[in-house]
Amino acid sequence: MIWCRFEVDGRVAYGLVDGDRIRELQGDLFGENTISSVSHDLPKTKLLVPVIPKTFFCIGLNYADHVIRRASLLGRPPVFPEKPDIGYRANNALIAHDDDIVKPGDSGEEFQYEGELVAVFGKRAKHVSRDEALDCILGWTIGNDVTERTWQASDRTLWRAKNADTFKPMGPWIVTGLDPSDMTTTVRLNGIVMDEFATGNMIFDVATYVSELTKYVTIEPGDVMWMGTDGLPANMKVGDTVEVEISGIGVLRNRVVAGR
Amino acid sequence: MIWCRFEVDGRVAYGLVDGDRIRELQGDLFGENTISSVSHDLPKTKLLVPVIPKTFFCIGLNYADHVIRRASLLGRPPVFPEKPDIGYRANNALIAHDDDIVKPGDSGEEFQYEGELVAVFGKRAKHVSRDEALDCILGWTIGNDVTERTWQASDRTLWRAKNADTFKPMGPWIVTGLDPSDMTTTVRLNGIVMDEFATGNMIFDVATYVSELTKYVTIEPGDVMWMGTDGLPANMKVGDTVEVEISGIGVLRNRVVAGR
Repeated sequence: MIWCRFEVDGRVAYGLVDGDRIRELQGDLFGENTISSVSHDLPKTKLLVPVIPKTFFCIGLNYADHVIRRASLLGRPPVFPEKPDIGYRANNALIAHDDDIVKPGDSGEEFQYEGELVAVFGKRAKHVSRDEALDCILGWTIGNDVTERTWQASDRTLWRAKNADTFKPMGPWIVTGLDPSDMTTTVRLNGIVMDEFATGNMIFDVATYVSELTKYVTIEPGDVMWMGTDGLPANMKVGDTVEVEISGIGVLRNRVVAGR
Repeated sequence: MIWCRFEVDGRVAYGLVDGDRIRELQGDLFGENTISSVSHDLPKTKLLVPVIPKTFFCIGLNYADHVIRRASLLGRPPVFPEKPDIGYRANNALIAHDDDIVKPGDSGEEFQYEGELVAVFGKRAKHVSRDEALDCILGWTIGNDVTERTWQASDRTLWRAKNADTFKPMGPWIVTGLDPSDMTTTVRLNGIVMDEFATGNMIFDVATYVSELTKYVTIEPGDVMWMGTDGLPANMKVGDTVEVEISGIGVLRNRVVAGR
C-alpha cells in the first residue's frame, strides 16, 4: 500500500494512493482511521512531507564505498563505524517532493545530495530484538540528506551543513510491505544517473539499528530513521533538478533555487 | 505570567498559574486561546513537559568556566567556541518536573546533571536581527541536560550520552517577561548546593544565538533552545534528587532511579 499526506481545500489529510486517485483517510495514519469515500486526483494534488516525526533519527556512515571514497577525497584513511551510532536531523529542514531546495547565498560549491532509504516507524516500542525490529516499521520512504561540505568541515556541529531550511527533502509517500534488502537506489542530476547502489548493502542493517536504538530510546509512531547513503555525491547548482529513486518506493524530485 | 502544561481527567491542557491555582486555557498556548473559568488545584495537578518542540535546539559549550574545568579534568587545553554553533537534542528524552530520571543499567559512574536556561520561542521567524531576537521568545523554562560521560567520549554522536529516554528533564513551566541577563542558576544534589552561577554569563548571549540560528533556520512557536551550563557537574547516583533552580522561573526537581 502507498500512503501519502497531502493538502486539500486548506486541510491536511492522509490518503491511500490507488493509481491516479487518492482515497482520503479519516483519522490519523498513525492512529485510528478508516478509508472514506472521498477521493482526489493524484496529479492535481499537492503532496506534503509524509510525516513530521517527533524524533528525526539519521545514520551518518552506513555504506562502505561512501566511507572509502569520501575519505580518499579528503586524503585520509577510511574509518568505518565500529558500532551502530545514531545521529539526528532537524524538522525545520524538511520539505516535500517537488518543493524547492533553497541554496543559501553564502553556501559554497560543494552543495551535495545524498540519496537515502527512510524507515517510518509505526509503533511505540523499546528493547526490540533484531527479529522483531522490522515489525516496528510501518513503511518506507525516500530522503535526500542535502549537505554543504564546507560547513560540514568548519562547524562544530552539522546544524548548517545538514539542517538549514529545505536541506531535508522527504517523500513522495510511504510504501508498506517492502524488503529493504531487495531495493536499488538511483540518484539522477538533470536526468543523468550519478549514483546507483544496492540499498541493502549497509554496514549495519535496519534491524540492527532498530535493536541498538531501542536499547536506550523509545521509538514512537511517525518517527523516521534515515539509513545513510553510498557512493560519492556530486555538487548541485542553482537550477539543477535532483531525483532520488528507490525501486518499489518511487521518485523524490526537487529543484535547486537560489536563496538569500 | 506563568504558563504550565498539565494532565487533568485524561486530557492535556495549558493553564495560567495563579498562586496555588491553575486557570485552564481553552485552545493552544502557541495559537488562539482564551482563559476559561475552569481552574484546578496546582499542588494536586500532574505537570507535563511545558512543550514538545518541533525542533529541539541546544547549545553545547556556552560558559567559559565549564569549558576550562571540563578541559582540565580531561587533561586538555580549553578550546572556546569561536562562533555560535547550534546543536540538537531529541524529544524522546524529555520528561517533566517530578518525573524520574532513569539511569540505564549499563551506564557508568559519570552520570551527571547540567542545569540550563531554556528559551521557548513564540513566533515563526527567520533572518531575525540581534535587536529583534528577544521578541521571538515567549518565555523561559529550565532544562537538565543529563549526560553519561563515558558514552560522550566513546560514541561518534551524543545519541546515548545525552538523548537516552528521560535524559532531558524540562520544566516546571514557562515564565514570561524575564531578563536572562539578571538570573542565577543553582544546582542542588540531595539539597546540597553543587553549582551556582550567573545565568547570563554566556560566551554568546541568547540574542546572538537567535540571530545566527535564524540566518539558516526558521524557528517555530514551541521550539526550544537550551543555553548550556557552567561549572563542573558532579555524578548522580540512583536514589539522588537533583534540583535546578533559576531565579524568577522556579525549581526543576527529578529523582534518579535504576533502569534496565
